[in-house]
Amino acid sequence: MRITIDDTFWAPRQKTNAEVTLPAIYQRCEETGRIAAWNLNWQPGLSHEPHIFWDSDVAKWIEAAAYSLETQPNPALERQVDALVDRIAAAQQPDGYLNTYFTVVQPEMRWKNLRDWHELYCAGHLIEAGIAYFQAMGKHKLLQTVQRYADYIDSEFGDKPGQKRGYPGHEEIELALVMMYRLTGEKRYLKLAQFFVTERGRQPHYFDLEARARGEDPTDYWAKTHAYTQSHLQVREQTEPVGHAVRGLYLYCAMADLAAETGDAELLAACRRIWAHLTERRLYITGGVGSSAANEGYTEDYDLPNESAYAETCAAIGLVFWAQRMLQLDPDRRYADVMERALYNGVLSGVSLQGDTFFYENPLAGRGDHHRWRWHKCSCCPPNLARLLASLGRYIYSQAEAALYVHLYVAGTAELEISGQTVRLRQETAYPWDGAVRFLVELKSAVDFTLALRIPGWCRDSRLELNGEPVSLPEVMCKGYALLKRTWQPGDRLQLDLAMPVECLQAHPAVRENTGRVALQRGPVVYCLEEVDNGSHLHDLAILPDAGFDAQFEPQLLGGVVSISGKALRRDLRDWQGKLYRSEPPTLRAAPFKAVPYCAWDNRDPGEMAVWVRQLAVNSCQ
Amino acid sequence: MRITIDDTFWAPRQKTNAEVTLPAIYQRCEETGRIAAWNLNWQPGLSHEPHIFWDSDVAKWIEAAAYSLETQPNPALERQVDALVDRIAAAQQPDGYLNTYFTVVQPEMRWKNLRDWHELYCAGHLIEAGIAYFQAMGKHKLLQTVQRYADYIDSEFGDKPGQKRGYPGHEEIELALVMMYRLTGEKRYLKLAQFFVTERGRQPHYFDLEARARGEDPTDYWAKTHAYTQSHLQVREQTEPVGHAVRGLYLYCAMADLAAETGDAELLAACRRIWAHLTERRLYITGGVGSSAANEGYTEDYDLPNESAYAETCAAIGLVFWAQRMLQLDPDRRYADVMERALYNGVLSGVSLQGDTFFYENPLAGRGDHHRWRWHKCSCCPPNLARLLASLGRYIYSQAEAALYVHLYVAGTAELEISGQTVRLRQETAYPWDGAVRFLVELKSAVDFTLALRIPGWCRDSRLELNGEPVSLPEVMCKGYALLKRTWQPGDRLQLDLAMPVECLQAHPAVRENTGRVALQRGPVVYCLEEVDNGSHLHDLAILPDAGFDAQFEPQLLGGVVSISGKALRRDLRDWQGKLYRSEPPTLRAAPFKAVPYCAWDNRDPGEMAVWVRQLAVNSCQ
Repeated sequence: MRITIDDTFWAPRQKTNAEVTLPAIYQRCEETGRIAAWNLNWQPGLSHEPHIFWDSDVAKWIEAAAYSLETQPNPALERQVDALVDRIAAAQQPDGYLNTYFTVVQPEMRWKNLRDWHELYCAGHLIEAGIAYFQAMGKHKLLQTVQRYADYIDSEFGDKPGQKRGYPGHEEIELALVMMYRLTGEKRYLKLAQFFVTERGRQPHYFDLEARARGEDPTDYWAKTHAYTQSHLQVREQTEPVGHAVRGLYLYCAMADLAAETGDAELLAACRRIWAHLTERRLYITGGVGSSAANEGYTEDYDLPNESAYAETCAAIGLVFWAQRMLQLDPDRRYADVMERALYNGVLSGVSLQGDTFFYENPLAGRGDHHRWRWHKCSCCPPNLARLLASLGRYIYSQAEAALYVHLYVAGTAELEISGQTVRLRQETAYPWDGAVRFLVELKSAVDFTLALRIPGWCRDSRLELNGEPVSLPEVMCKGYALLKRTWQPGDRLQLDLAMPVECLQAHPAVRENTGRVALQRGPVVYCLEEVDNGSHLHDLAILPDAGFDAQFEPQLLGGVVSISGKALRRDLRDWQGKLYRSEPPTLRAAPFKAVPYCAWDNRDPGEMAVWVRQLAVNSCQ
Repeated sequence: MRITIDDTFWAPRQKTNAEVTLPAIYQRCEETGRIAAWNLNWQPGLSHEPHIFWDSDVAKWIEAAAYSLETQPNPALERQVDALVDRIAAAQQPDGYLNTYFTVVQPEMRWKNLRDWHELYCAGHLIEAGIAYFQAMGKHKLLQTVQRYADYIDSEFGDKPGQKRGYPGHEEIELALVMMYRLTGEKRYLKLAQFFVTERGRQPHYFDLEARARGEDPTDYWAKTHAYTQSHLQVREQTEPVGHAVRGLYLYCAMADLAAETGDAELLAACRRIWAHLTERRLYITGGVGSSAANEGYTEDYDLPNESAYAETCAAIGLVFWAQRMLQLDPDRRYADVMERALYNGVLSGVSLQGDTFFYENPLAGRGDHHRWRWHKCSCCPPNLARLLASLGRYIYSQAEAALYVHLYVAGTAELEISGQTVRLRQETAYPWDGAVRFLVELKSAVDFTLALRIPGWCRDSRLELNGEPVSLPEVMCKGYALLKRTWQPGDRLQLDLAMPVECLQAHPAVRENTGRVALQRGPVVYCLEEVDNGSHLHDLAILPDAGFDAQFEPQLLGGVVSISGKALRRDLRDWQGKLYRSEPPTLRAAPFKAVPYCAWDNRDPGEMAVWVRQLAVNSCQ
């Protein structure tokens, strides 16, 4: 499928991604020694000592560059990638091994600490990069290099005598190996992915065995529990998301991939259980996941603090990856709804509008001291964002035999083959600011196929017309998609109208921090209040039940967004006369408020921010 | 002044303090090696290595035992104290030095780290103990020992050549030295206290000089700032409470004492500034102070989180000490109101009803995992509580020439000399459960004096009758006290009635966590909700504006308390069908609530607790 995006929301962001973010990441990789590390000439005493996860940052940058080159030729960027590929290929060891840190810093520790170090994780990202660059440009060099590395890993790990029965502490290689299998058709990659996934959590626990082999007491493990790496149980027995969020999400991606390739019903059932648990009890309204900094992951059900929310950008990205895979297995709106929620909110908040500063944590409230940084010593998020933005087209549609699913509404075109004929579908929309979407079906001649349009879960009033005639949606709905199965004619037109009023969302009563509060959402976009628009003491602002929401597109604001304004009340700070506590009821004064999309916060003057805003109780007057 | 207490609130607590708490603390001091440490026979390799603050725990226990013996003869306890005094006296070094840790563990470090270690702090507590035991029992041995120690310290510290210009990192000795001066009349103790207070914060900074002398870089100081020890500025320039709360409060006590003894207007002005800042911006409604665990102290104005509140028991006790001293200088209700708030709430919460377990932190909300412990490695709070409870009589009244001030309402008697005659004042009251207080003035013959009765700041409706005749309060009020200046006759009777409705207190709008919430208070008693009475999810409970509060004395509840019940609403947890967010307004259901005194929480089944409870907005229906 060939996708173009030419809307006003994503296309400018893809342009910024290509023109600002990609060069910025490369430059910072260079400044910090991540590029030079591939020369393998670091020595003790020199600065820029390679780090265990550096290879992954560079690999993700290549992957992002590949996706960008796929849709946007850029000879200079291509030369830059080629030169880097040459260095990487040259760094490969005679046995196929390929890792800067464990070649120059601690060569004696190769494969000695799968639990804490990121060797197989880096390998996975290198494999993804090799595949992406081959698919984008048809160039084999990196692919061959990483395939040789994959072959070497395949020889080292497994249940045959002399092989290690280990698996990565930070999952990632599993999903990369499935990709390699899909590209090459070589079953051994699929089997190695299966081995890693199936071996995970077996007793005696591999991470304990290797800790003892290093002369350590496994009970001294800093994370205290193997739940941190989702290896506390075998994956088929797992029922809820645990531990480090990004690790888990990459594992669930691989489990879904394996279920798709092998029909493994247990893996699929585990994915569904974990998905339900995560989305019903542990998901921020922004699509952020993993509420705690302590383990970069989950705590307990409904524990979703706002100001201390970790909600790592990479975790929201991982959730998008997983949702897309679940959609392939089962085109159910529940997955696309979450994917869209994460994309428009908790993923996109990770990068500034200018494209050169980044959030690692994405809290839902702040006092003005949380800002995007140029770089971070743990810089997984910027290249992860870059590769997702560059490959966004892959998330809009999916094809299942003679069905074309539209998961996201983004102006542009999709061109694909159905029953041997070329089908071109054009979307025209100002989504996410407007819920009207026009589709034009461009064909040479009539084709039988099903066009499936997602009716988003956030939408409570949708209408569809085919060539000017209303379609009765209840009759064609299946799992949240309107299935239009017919013989399509050249020039067929569809008009979808998704009503987009401002919604005041409530959180489940068990989410303690959001009690008495609402979050504003319009379409897929979650809003927040910033001090720059509303003054300080945001915690005291209370939206009135009859707030009179006014949603206006402001072309000059934050690159062009719909803002929401309305009526609120605040207590008067001036009549307290030095008292800290008093029994007199507060004096309230009117305070109009203005909300902007959460994804665009912290792009103006620094200050307080809040997604969840107090609302004077609707039912208190009955 | 001779005070007896025979009420139903404090007298049983004093009994428990004497019969349970004092023996428990001694036993745990013994178990942990704090008693044996005085034998000075610890050697490297042995267990129970003395710690830098152990001496203070034992000293405070002796002080508490002394106060208890003063009102309650107990020959066994007296023998126990005497035996301990013998050990302490025997541990004194030939030069007068007296500290277990710096005698047996690190003798070479004596006076080398005043900033971080607790040498002068321990000395202060030993001095207080020596004075208290002498005053209680007339026994000189400990007093002579600590006086010799004070003399030695006086020879070591000062601005004469060869003396150290240092001062304690943890204040305490300053106030003890003023006590020693008051007892002995020896000016040098007063001067040494003045030296310590005046030298504090001078540049070049003593703590930096001594760090360099130890070979350390002063900028490596773990606390980062000398504000931690209130030595960032000279004390006369300080305007707000900073750093470690207990340290600061002991310093302010000494500043008030010095102002009282020397008329130092600058010290008094600094005390007043710091008092105003603390009570107007940094005081929990329970009388707790110091919101942060990181520095056991202050953060910024209005930063008063509930669940993570540190509010160390010792800090609330320190606030009582300081308030009492401010009252001596200036009998103004503002000090007594805070003293009473701390005593009935944030101090008393520090000990269980049974008297043998203790809080170090006193949070204002909890999820069921914060409980009193038998002992703590940093066990400053239990003996501090014990000495305050045993000496409570000292806080009820004060005498200023021919005036007797009544600061607290506690049934019992005060006997004192005014103009050479014995005056006996008897209080009869069920305070704090009832606001009616009867006074009987017992005299041999008529005496001219002023009886000053505090009209608490929390009271909005008070009435006073003298011998059955109404007294017009507005005509006699001065700084919150009703001043009754007359020639008192034997048998004069007063009846004070303080209305005690349930009050819903609001916090200043800048206290972010309490927005939309109220705290219930009745008389001086702050209430809380516990899960054992109200079920879980307390965060969701919202008190109705017309809650219909019902205050009932329940003799079987928590040793006999007034509980408060009323009407509330909660959201229905059952109609969410797996949703985490939704736009439908919540279904509310009636949920009666019951509140109990905060000081008595965590004495039944463990569970959630909340002082600040949501209230559906009073003004939202206008």
